[in-house]
Amino acid sequence: MTNLTPNSSFSVTLRLQIPNRVGMLATVTQAIATSGGNLGRIDLIEQSRQQSIRDLTVDAASTEHAEKIFQSVKELNDITVLDVYDRTFNLHRGGKISIASRIPLKSVSDLAMAYTPGVGRVCKAIAENPEDVYNFTIKRNTVAIVTDGSAVLGLGNLGAAAALPVMEGKAMLFKEFAGIDAFPICLDTQDTDEIVKAVKDIAPVFGGVNLEDIAAPRCFEIEKRLQSELDIPIFHDDQNGTAIVTLAALLNALKLVQKSIANIRIVINGAGAAGIAVARLLRKAGAEQIWMCDSKGIISTNRTDINEEKQEFAVKAQGTLGGATQGADVFIGLSGPGLLTPEMVKGMTKDAIIFAMANPIPEIQPELVPPNVVVMATGRSDYPNQINNVLAFPGVFRGALDCRAKMITTTMCLEAASAIASLVLPTDLHKEHIIPSVFDQRVSGAVASAVKQAAREEGIAQG
Amino acid sequence: MTNLTPNSSFSVTLRLQIPNRVGMLATVTQAIATSGGNLGRIDLIEQSRQQSIRDLTVDAASTEHAEKIFQSVKELNDITVLDVYDRTFNLHRGGKISIASRIPLKSVSDLAMAYTPGVGRVCKAIAENPEDVYNFTIKRNTVAIVTDGSAVLGLGNLGAAAALPVMEGKAMLFKEFAGIDAFPICLDTQDTDEIVKAVKDIAPVFGGVNLEDIAAPRCFEIEKRLQSELDIPIFHDDQNGTAIVTLAALLNALKLVQKSIANIRIVINGAGAAGIAVARLLRKAGAEQIWMCDSKGIISTNRTDINEEKQEFAVKAQGTLGGATQGADVFIGLSGPGLLTPEMVKGMTKDAIIFAMANPIPEIQPELVPPNVVVMATGRSDYPNQINNVLAFPGVFRGALDCRAKMITTTMCLEAASAIASLVLPTDLHKEHIIPSVFDQRVSGAVASAVKQAAREEGIAQG
Repeated sequence: MTNLTPNSSFSVTLRLQIPNRVGMLATVTQAIATSGGNLGRIDLIEQSRQQSIRDLTVDAASTEHAEKIFQSVKELNDITVLDVYDRTFNLHRGGKISIASRIPLKSVSDLAMAYTPGVGRVCKAIAENPEDVYNFTIKRNTVAIVTDGSAVLGLGNLGAAAALPVMEGKAMLFKEFAGIDAFPICLDTQDTDEIVKAVKDIAPVFGGVNLEDIAAPRCFEIEKRLQSELDIPIFHDDQNGTAIVTLAALLNALKLVQKSIANIRIVINGAGAAGIAVARLLRKAGAEQIWMCDSKGIISTNRTDINEEKQEFAVKAQGTLGGATQGADVFIGLSGPGLLTPEMVKGMTKDAIIFAMANPIPEIQPELVPPNVVVMATGRSDYPNQINNVLAFPGVFRGALDCRAKMITTTMCLEAASAIASLVLPTDLHKEHIIPSVFDQRVSGAVASAVKQAAREEGIAQG
Repeated sequence: MTNLTPNSSFSVTLRLQIPNRVGMLATVTQAIATSGGNLGRIDLIEQSRQQSIRDLTVDAASTEHAEKIFQSVKELNDITVLDVYDRTFNLHRGGKISIASRIPLKSVSDLAMAYTPGVGRVCKAIAENPEDVYNFTIKRNTVAIVTDGSAVLGLGNLGAAAALPVMEGKAMLFKEFAGIDAFPICLDTQDTDEIVKAVKDIAPVFGGVNLEDIAAPRCFEIEKRLQSELDIPIFHDDQNGTAIVTLAALLNALKLVQKSIANIRIVINGAGAAGIAVARLLRKAGAEQIWMCDSKGIISTNRTDINEEKQEFAVKAQGTLGGATQGADVFIGLSGPGLLTPEMVKGMTKDAIIFAMANPIPEIQPELVPPNVVVMATGRSDYPNQINNVLAFPGVFRGALDCRAKMITTTMCLEAASAIASLVLPTDLHKEHIIPSVFDQRVSGAVASAVKQAAREEGIAQG
């Protein structure tokens, strides 16, 4: 992890008692800098004539690094470390979301309308006209974020409870970027049939379902079955969301190298949920030469160890990833840290495009790519060109909910990708700016509009 | 429904254009009063020299009554009805709860801590130490409100979607009265095994489960199985909540008539979920003579048509409800409108206690009870002595969550009832004030303390 730059995910706050003497604070900041910490804000908590108490927020590169910074400050003469907080854990204490009432409940009259007896009239109205559930309940703006905890981030099968912090974070993103009320459903089962059944059982409350961190190949069947058995949109963000943002970034990157998607050869490393979904969407967008690789090398028609989804992309070529990248125009990594070497990249075309999206450590560090790479993107926020799903899923659901789409189609995903790409104006397009910032407030609205229009054209909008 | 008094559940807002002439507004208010409407606030929306536009809020007794009031205003000369809103439906538009972020998400640094990559550290911590789910997620303050829609209020089997407005209302009550984050789970199945399985599947996110509006006898088995198969508290409000508030009211009513619970004969009409649960808790509280009645009369040992739960309370006596009430001290109604006649009540003791809790229309209207009744209570907010579950369930869950109780025991319920009863001081105890107001802010705290103490003494508190 030492090759990572300090970032807020390993951020600590040191509460220090510092004598009021010239140069004392400077001694502290010097010690932090020397041990490689990235100093953020400094708050004054208390001050007397003799001394002050201050909170210093420091980004580190890892837990070990944070500990090293802490030790370097602790060893300073006359400085007392009163406390040290891990900011990430502190922020998670008690969870990250809550339920709020949308209307007051302060009087007998409020109670009589929002609860019994008034609510009974609303229940009866819905029983008589089932469509009214979209008018008089939370359903029209509420999404279930469903996981079985089997593929949590890049960490693997941590189980339902340990996945909950991710789902809560996702709920925050839904709210922040699209005003959608999303609630985490972490299922205590990893059986495909049971997952499908559980989601169908809880579906009445929800206007849509976002599947999250469910391992491949189970996730493909779950998504497919839910989509055919429920009449609300089902979206597997690890697949569909990743595919949309990847295509958006690729559309703009290709403009920079002046190539057409139909004529390039793309290598995708990683044939899990994300890899397969990206390959499918790129093919729909016109890509004709996609070579997928998994841990055993190129997914070749000769191989007998490949599942149904991988078979969709089996090619005649065979060999290693290093062989696949020879002469390739584009490398898309949805695999693991450091799997793409500078030597492999050198064998690509002279105007190569690299999307190294493994998280948190990309397939190749941007610092290491040779000069034949024109566009370099990762999933990280601390490098240019962050390809982040948050550009897609909030707007996709906003659009789908607003037009009551029965499902999310490939066309809707293609249109969402175009909408994201088009937000980078030709005059702003640059090899270090191929995709909008996650904080660009235009994004979710633009995606929602594109999705709605596509749904209407396809005749699957109901509202 | 015409014997009901106007109330906010049938509240309409009339937007009127009224000429600015002396007496015009009075004409309107007169028409509303004559047609039996209960005038609430009057808002001025716009005013010109010739006329004003005002919103008049009027409580009616039923939908038909609201229509009649509207017609009486519409027929007035020179008054134009611009619009008419049903306030209850208006308030429900878009639902009554939403999801809120507890922390800001405005910068790359916020994202890195609340979402990837920082959140991965929290996930790993929970995977390594499962107890940490109570520290770093919403679990410790989050309750699932689970229904199958089979017994929605007194309205019957309306199904999952039509039950949602009630569950949202309940979530508001949890928040308002105990600061608990509760989320509605409306299950699209009415099969006992499937309900149990679904609740177990979604359990990882929740610190407790509140079962709601599930028909008897299914509800008994569901509660029992969930309690034995999950390690979080399970509470069926229609049973346990009703039992707690009924016992609380009875404890205070008995003080007024100076009788001991061991010596009285209690008739319970209605042997569904609530009736059985009330009977069980009263028995635990010392009641020795309980005669239960269902639609076929007294639940007698002679009968062959009674389920397992009813058998617990079968008595030697047999006959009708009218027979059961002869000489009874207490009538508790958890049945239907108008089932208790004044003649039956006259046959009770000279200091009878009547809890007529059918909703919205009680077993007997308070106006109709003969003089031998000392204490009269209903479930309604527009009569004295409202026996309302909201006095119990928020505090019960607050207490259970705060001490990480594994379950809700009978002792916890008995202590909760005592705590509610004790909030009516001896000096305040009166036949029209046997139970605290639902807006008495001391209630949930007092219940929570009592529940926590009971849990600690029983050794089932974990935190």
